[in-house]
Amino acid sequence: MSTIGVDIGGTKIAAGVVDDDGAVLARTRRDTPATDPEAIEDAVADAVAELRAEHDVTAVGVAAAGYVDATRSVVVFAPNLSWRHEPLREEVEKRVGLPVVVENDANAAAWGEFTHGGGKGSRDMVLLTVGTGLGGGIVLDGELVRGTGGMAAEVGHLRVVPDGHQCGCGRTGCWEQYGSGSALVRWARALARTEPVAAARLLELSGGDPDAVMGVHVTQAAEEGDVAAVRLVATLGRWLGEGAASLAAVLDPGLVLVGGGVSEAGDLLLQPMREAFAGALTAAMHRDLARIDAAVLGNDAGMVGVAALAARP
Amino acid sequence: MSTIGVDIGGTKIAAGVVDDDGAVLARTRRDTPATDPEAIEDAVADAVAELRAEHDVTAVGVAAAGYVDATRSVVVFAPNLSWRHEPLREEVEKRVGLPVVVENDANAAAWGEFTHGGGKGSRDMVLLTVGTGLGGGIVLDGELVRGTGGMAAEVGHLRVVPDGHQCGCGRTGCWEQYGSGSALVRWARALARTEPVAAARLLELSGGDPDAVMGVHVTQAAEEGDVAAVRLVATLGRWLGEGAASLAAVLDPGLVLVGGGVSEAGDLLLQPMREAFAGALTAAMHRDLARIDAAVLGNDAGMVGVAALAARP
Amino acid sequence: MSTIGVDIGGTKIAAGVVDDDGAVLARTRRDTPATDPEAIEDAVADAVAELRAEHDVTAVGVAAAGYVDATRSVVVFAPNLSWRHEPLREEVEKRVGLPVVVENDANAAAWGEFTHGGGKGSRDMVLLTVGTGLGGGIVLDGELVRGTGGMAAEVGHLRVVPDGHQCGCGRTGCWEQYGSGSALVRWARALARTEPVAAARLLELSGGDPDAVMGVHVTQAAEEGDVAAVRLVATLGRWLGEGAASLAAVLDPGLVLVGGGVSEAGDLLLQPMREAFAGALTAAMHRDLARIDAAVLGNDAGMVGVAALAARP
Amino acid sequence: MSTIGVDIGGTKIAAGVVDDDGAVLARTRRDTPATDPEAIEDAVADAVAELRAEHDVTAVGVAAAGYVDATRSVVVFAPNLSWRHEPLREEVEKRVGLPVVVENDANAAAWGEFTHGGGKGSRDMVLLTVGTGLGGGIVLDGELVRGTGGMAAEVGHLRVVPDGHQCGCGRTGCWEQYGSGSALVRWARALARTEPVAAARLLELSGGDPDAVMGVHVTQAAEEGDVAAVRLVATLGRWLGEGAASLAAVLDPGLVLVGGGVSEAGDLLLQPMREAFAGALTAAMHRDLARIDAAVLGNDAGMVGVAALAARP
Repeated sequence: MSTIGVDIGGTKIAAGVVDDDGAVLARTRRDTPATDPEAIEDAVADAVAELRAEHDVTAVGVAAAGYVDATRSVVVFAPNLSWRHEPLREEVEKRVGLPVVVENDANAAAWGEFTHGGGKGSRDMVLLTVGTGLGGGIVLDGELVRGTGGMAAEVGHLRVVPDGHQCGCGRTGCWEQYGSGSALVRWARALARTEPVAAARLLELSGGDPDAVMGVHVTQAAEEGDVAAVRLVATLGRWLGEGAASLAAVLDPGLVLVGGGVSEAGDLLLQPMREAFAGALTAAMHRDLARIDAAVLGNDAGMVGVAALAARP
Repeated sequence: MSTIGVDIGGTKIAAGVVDDDGAVLARTRRDTPATDPEAIEDAVADAVAELRAEHDVTAVGVAAAGYVDATRSVVVFAPNLSWRHEPLREEVEKRVGLPVVVENDANAAAWGEFTHGGGKGSRDMVLLTVGTGLGGGIVLDGELVRGTGGMAAEVGHLRVVPDGHQCGCGRTGCWEQYGSGSALVRWARALARTEPVAAARLLELSGGDPDAVMGVHVTQAAEEGDVAAVRLVATLGRWLGEGAASLAAVLDPGLVLVGGGVSEAGDLLLQPMREAFAGALTAAMHRDLARIDAAVLGNDAGMVGVAALAARP
Repeated sequence: MSTIGVDIGGTKIAAGVVDDDGAVLARTRRDTPATDPEAIEDAVADAVAELRAEHDVTAVGVAAAGYVDATRSVVVFAPNLSWRHEPLREEVEKRVGLPVVVENDANAAAWGEFTHGGGKGSRDMVLLTVGTGLGGGIVLDGELVRGTGGMAAEVGHLRVVPDGHQCGCGRTGCWEQYGSGSALVRWARALARTEPVAAARLLELSGGDPDAVMGVHVTQAAEEGDVAAVRLVATLGRWLGEGAASLAAVLDPGLVLVGGGVSEAGDLLLQPMREAFAGALTAAMHRDLARIDAAVLGNDAGMVGVAALAARP
Repeated sequence: MSTIGVDIGGTKIAAGVVDDDGAVLARTRRDTPATDPEAIEDAVADAVAELRAEHDVTAVGVAAAGYVDATRSVVVFAPNLSWRHEPLREEVEKRVGLPVVVENDANAAAWGEFTHGGGKGSRDMVLLTVGTGLGGGIVLDGELVRGTGGMAAEVGHLRVVPDGHQCGCGRTGCWEQYGSGSALVRWARALARTEPVAAARLLELSGGDPDAVMGVHVTQAAEEGDVAAVRLVATLGRWLGEGAASLAAVLDPGLVLVGGGVSEAGDLLLQPMREAFAGALTAAMHRDLARIDAAVLGNDAGMVGVAALAARP
């Protein structure tokens, strides 16, 4: 039995037929007509139709970057898609004539990793998605944590520094401002401006302009062994570990998975994260520390996860 | 059908027969023979025997201040009771000949409030127990969150200030150091030492000694309208609200209950907490804010809650 | 006996003839040819020549926004004027044929306030210039504090929040990121984005665009009594007071003057600043608190001050 | 020409005859009759009399741990000596019949290092005295900075962490709570309690009791190369360096000397301090960094310094 998972991103819509084992049997993509909900819904329906031409499916799951309500029907608010209270489930069901389930993309990715990725066999896990921002999904006792309003797992907005760096959400000191690719870039550019000798390799990669240093420059330089870049990635890892320790005090998960583009730095990121986690977690001496590992499904996590949600009875 | 709930505190063991509606039909108490596990187990058994003489019960629940393992059998570590890996369930079952369930006292209290107290009718709630320390229990989707190792809901050890006040747990900046009766007393004493005029009423209540100011002096003075005391209680409320906002970013509960001795300050504490919560929670504009209210079961919460846990099939 | 004071700003060069009492007898202005040191020096000489046509003067003082070396001759680094190790004193002396003294603009302003403004009669004072950034000048025992390298009084880069908001200087948590007009604007925009109802008046003044809210909108709304704006200005005042308390622990000045555009908010800013200062200063009970007051010379402070420095034997 | 310097400590009064070159020609000591001002003044007079029996002196300087007023006559407040507004100068002059000058002990020590110790030849320097607390003295342009009320250089009460560790002064997050022997001990004990394996050597030195770990245990273990102790001393060095960077932003000294008992850790402390200083100081790229070095006069600094102050015309 297969279902279709659709992941609506800011620029691309990725859709795929996913079987019971999480295998992606077929794929297709569409551009995201970003600010027009109806056009997005049409594009989703079109992609679904294309996939159904060759595959029998029983349901459709749709993941989107936004707050999805507790009934998994309505996108309450999607900052990048200009959606407000969009009845996405109903609109897509109308178009495709199949049962539809809607989920926040980070939650979907967590469910994907839990059912078919790095979280298989675990019971309580947290997925941190470290990209431009810091997203997350939480599985406790084998179930996705959604909260009363469906807005749970906004882990990036845990406050880690009172009066800290301004966050786009309007608050200050959110974890996302310290545990994300944006933070890495902010620190790297500051270094390039004020310590150009130490940042020589970063400046070389950015063409000499401190403000053109990008996350990939930092991770590339770190992989080459550049001291300053290794230190920057380790700083990011430290913030991730310290924040994860706060999460673990609350949730005591057995597993923390790290996905998103920045996670490609691998142990350059994860090893400092593990050390900081152990150093910051209360009562570390009296417990088995959560395993901290890289997520495995990459960009497919959301699509696979939401397909798996659609397949649930 | 009734069960017995036993709450092992640092100085007293409270036990009661609790019916399906959470009513306490009978009670008894024992002193806690603090550092001798066997003596404690004997005292528990003795209290249970006394209650069973007059009441038919089907099971016993035991709550204790400590980490209880994932199987609800073993107390892994109880700082005040000197327990290490104590097989409390087995030991009590052996003595009473009934099914026994063991739970952390704050978790038990949360379950008590959820089933028979201020949380009735909710689905996702957090109980904060603000006493000397800051404990908590979490219910999500109608189930207690225990975590892989049974150590979840140690909310007092969420880090709220990097490099903040030293915590007894060995880390720094734990929420407990800002959101507890101990914090309130620390601030009050500092005020009494350095601003005796502002702290005149507090000093009067403490007999003139800044280091003799106690939490009850602060709450009493605040209830009388003493400006300095009102401000201290509000500061505590603010820290509770800000920490609760971090919790809400992660869990999105519909309800936050505040129990423990300090919660008797009522709206002097809760109103500043609500304001700080609204001001610190990400995307507050896009969601229904969790209700923040006083817990209702008082000191019975743990006993009632663990009895209710014992009553589950 | 008169001297000429020249204040080189980012867009305008202001010059004036200043007598022994600090009175400005004549004035002229030039545009700043921003990134060409020679052109700036020519413009300074031209302004001086114009003023000397009508006034007898004995010396010229030049204030510039940059690090001025210990000999008051060389501008080591001026971020906005693209100067690096510019021998400004020599270049201007060559052009005008009079003794020249060069000073950092904030230091000059402090000296102006000390000799002819709000600091007259004091001995130890700090001037805080709260504009886009946060500058300062320090007078101790009647002398300007310049430091071994001439870079003293960069008070805006006192670190007030570890890992706080990113500063343009490359570090984080500098006082300037909390005690400046830029901070005020950052907070106001965040409020306008996330709490549009509370920020209604600010949005009205900015034409409805959260990102168009400016500092003058905030101070205007605060003066009208708008609650949100009053609170924002008070927050700025609080940060100024808390930072000033750290300065006072180190310097124990009798007077703290607040100048710069934002200081026009008057007691809306200064009263919260005074309260925060008293609340944050160590041993406040055992000392006379420094007076905190508005500076009086306004935009003339730098010109008057550097003229007064030039008049010293 | 010689003068006598007297350093009143919490337990001992040290007095010495000091010549123009800072050489101590003779010494004597008395116990401190701690809480009786008159008895202390008698003991000071007695020590002076003993020294004058063999040496011709022209004046007496008295250093004490407390706030000394701007006229160097009155001890406004001395926490450990129970003094409030004690006219120490007058009382000692009455007893010894020589001109007397009174100075805060840390200021005196700074003057000692400046005139006859590690600061000879400098112009702007800061002395940090890292003992149980964190004291300091500041010399700018060759003069001791005393401030309007005589309370300058209370550098230990610069706030480095908002809402940080409670300080004995009643405020929170004072530098002293992070840059002192007390901080070192607090961290070491926390480590010993929660990570006994890592802290094995510390526990060995303390006889197995985490709460008996002392500062000397940490410095001894660090000198032996114990990893945990080295890291603790480096953490202290880091806090000292970061705080010193804030001081340097304000004062731009050419020299920072580190004295006090903890400074005996030498480069184990100073090297991390230097690195943190360079990393935290604004515009580090554009300036010569202050030299950071160990003070050289040890416990004599206060006595020598106050004798040198007494020798000034």
